Amino acid sequence: MRLPHFAPLPASLPATVPFVGPETLERQRGAAFPARLGANENGFGPSPKAIEAMAQAAGEVWKYGDSTSHDLVHALAAHHRVTPAHILVGEGIDGLLGLTARLMLAPGDAVVTSDGAYPTFNYHVAGFGGVLHKVPYRNDAEDPAALTAMAREVGARLTYIANPDNPMGSWHEGDVIAAMLDELPPDSLLLLDEAYVEFAPDSAVPAISHDDPRVLRFRTFSKAYGMAGARIGYVIGHPDLIAGFERIRNHFGVNRVAQAGALAALGDQDWLVQVQGRVAAARNRIAAIAGECGMTALPSATNFVAVDTGRDGSHARAIVQGLAERGVFIRMPGVAPLDRCIRVSCAPEIELDLFAEGLPQVLSEF
Amino acid sequence: MRLPHFAPLPASLPATVPFVGPETLERQRGAAFPARLGANENGFGPSPKAIEAMAQAAGEVWKYGDSTSHDLVHALAAHHRVTPAHILVGEGIDGLLGLTARLMLAPGDAVVTSDGAYPTFNYHVAGFGGVLHKVPYRNDAEDPAALTAMAREVGARLTYIANPDNPMGSWHEGDVIAAMLDELPPDSLLLLDEAYVEFAPDSAVPAISHDDPRVLRFRTFSKAYGMAGARIGYVIGHPDLIAGFERIRNHFGVNRVAQAGALAALGDQDWLVQVQGRVAAARNRIAAIAGECGMTALPSATNFVAVDTGRDGSHARAIVQGLAERGVFIRMPGVAPLDRCIRVSCAPEIELDLFAEGLPQVLSEF
Repeated sequence: MRLPHFAPLPASLPATVPFVGPETLERQRGAAFPARLGANENGFGPSPKAIEAMAQAAGEVWKYGDSTSHDLVHALAAHHRVTPAHILVGEGIDGLLGLTARLMLAPGDAVVTSDGAYPTFNYHVAGFGGVLHKVPYRNDAEDPAALTAMAREVGARLTYIANPDNPMGSWHEGDVIAAMLDELPPDSLLLLDEAYVEFAPDSAVPAISHDDPRVLRFRTFSKAYGMAGARIGYVIGHPDLIAGFERIRNHFGVNRVAQAGALAALGDQDWLVQVQGRVAAARNRIAAIAGECGMTALPSATNFVAVDTGRDGSHARAIVQGLAERGVFIRMPGVAPLDRCIRVSCAPEIELDLFAEGLPQVLSEF
Repeated sequence: MRLPHFAPLPASLPATVPFVGPETLERQRGAAFPARLGANENGFGPSPKAIEAMAQAAGEVWKYGDSTSHDLVHALAAHHRVTPAHILVGEGIDGLLGLTARLMLAPGDAVVTSDGAYPTFNYHVAGFGGVLHKVPYRNDAEDPAALTAMAREVGARLTYIANPDNPMGSWHEGDVIAAMLDELPPDSLLLLDEAYVEFAPDSAVPAISHDDPRVLRFRTFSKAYGMAGARIGYVIGHPDLIAGFERIRNHFGVNRVAQAGALAALGDQDWLVQVQGRVAAARNRIAAIAGECGMTALPSATNFVAVDTGRDGSHARAIVQGLAERGVFIRMPGVAPLDRCIRVSCAPEIELDLFAEGLPQVLSEF
């Protein structure tokens, strides 16, 4: 008996995964990573109030989650001074980027991003038949002028930029991002991934009207709020764009426990401030460790630091590999010249100690 | 400034929702439902071990979930005596049905289901451009012969059947389901939704080879395992079909806390047996309550009971409405003649007491 054929679009796609998860790497090496510094998770954790809310909600997990995430949407609307109609809660930014690709792209449509930017976005674009056009980073940052120029050249339906950026940690002032909107071609949408924005200076947040129909802004509870495993994020945009998702989203897809946790996390802004402080201190520590090894930490407005190894991608890759063998999980950018760097997530002291210990050992072996 | 246009397929779809959730109804009425009997949730709840596992995992929610759900997949493989390559864990059956539609359907492809069967499946099919062909229920059950005949007639790519069925609670012997495979057209896939199968007699489980490439079987932790809000389910099928999902799925989409809970729930089969017993008792109680009101409960192999009101859809709708006003949330089938019934989920005594109290009151007012 033959396997039924897949639809033409999926049939044309490779079986792939944007990232190999740390658990998979742990199984390959046969031991856990005592230092988990590779996935830009937030080891300082969520607010204790969020943990408590989730533990409480676990007892009510027999109920489906509210399909409208009503309470969370309303709290977010108040937080961002918009109406609830401007916000959709979804299964993390990854899930929301997938839905956005589906909502906006017909096969063959042009999409612009930076070469070396978020692979999961590229995965979703390819998954709906979009054609990616990539522009290079410039000075280790995404290049707004190049992105919009390419968008005009190819008539992009979607243009992606993360501010602050992953994997480099660089950022632009909000004015620069806002100015991109006027440079985009007509009938085009800017996808502004603000996953790390709570770690950035206030001036990195663009003053864009929430009724501007040319942009969707993506936020998450995975990073500053420390809830990556809960899979909950949101998108802010013009109500008619937000309403578009009702055509395609999986309405009961957001975990009930995650909704309760996110609501509590949002309500504990004091904890967020503490985390921001710890992250800033950890960035300094990572920079110091790098400096002691003759490497240069790049400025970061995120909860990770790209460290310039001073050599090339194969050198950086050897460091990543050497650290992994010592139980220190980090990652690195995927394309040159960014791949001269290693990328180290902020984490509690005890994990950074292992990085501080392992890095000179690895280097001494070369 | 004009809104960027949606892609043609989403642009052709209505903004819709397969179900209005109970929280939305509660907000509309301005009060909670003391009896939540409408969503086929399992008010007996998950295993206390699952709750404990989830409460524990909440403290580790800063980590992304394992993208391969390795431990859960391996436990499920052992449970079903298949290899891990036969199983994919995903965000509930709803999410997995959406992925299946995406994997298999090109716009215009034919899909067969029963008129009145699971609306969320229809929503996903429409969402990927599939064309639905519906056959009527027969004797309040899905009609395997009619489904396969229609599948041959229209050259269906997908044929959907739930066994046991929702919303009627009816079921077929496993032999009947297995025999459908030989009646399907070539290059066609049977989607066997077994969301409720843990409540059914063993004989309802078809003895289909897990290497049979003509079928995907969908299971969930939402029903018998009492974890609807955790959004976690799985699909069992030929490894080459299962591998196909790697082309399109959101790899890090499954909640970490849900994975931990599901693993613990699967490991507590004693609790499952207890729940099965309580559900069976609740079915009897619902039937008795219905009988006292001159109505007939249909046989059920699920955790809900379809109760024949003896009249038509508008009568049933009035009962649903009247009960809602009394704080008792139930639902009803959407199409005639199934809609002569109301559908009542099994639940703890205290909630069924409210149903027992409310139903005669509602009827006395007509």
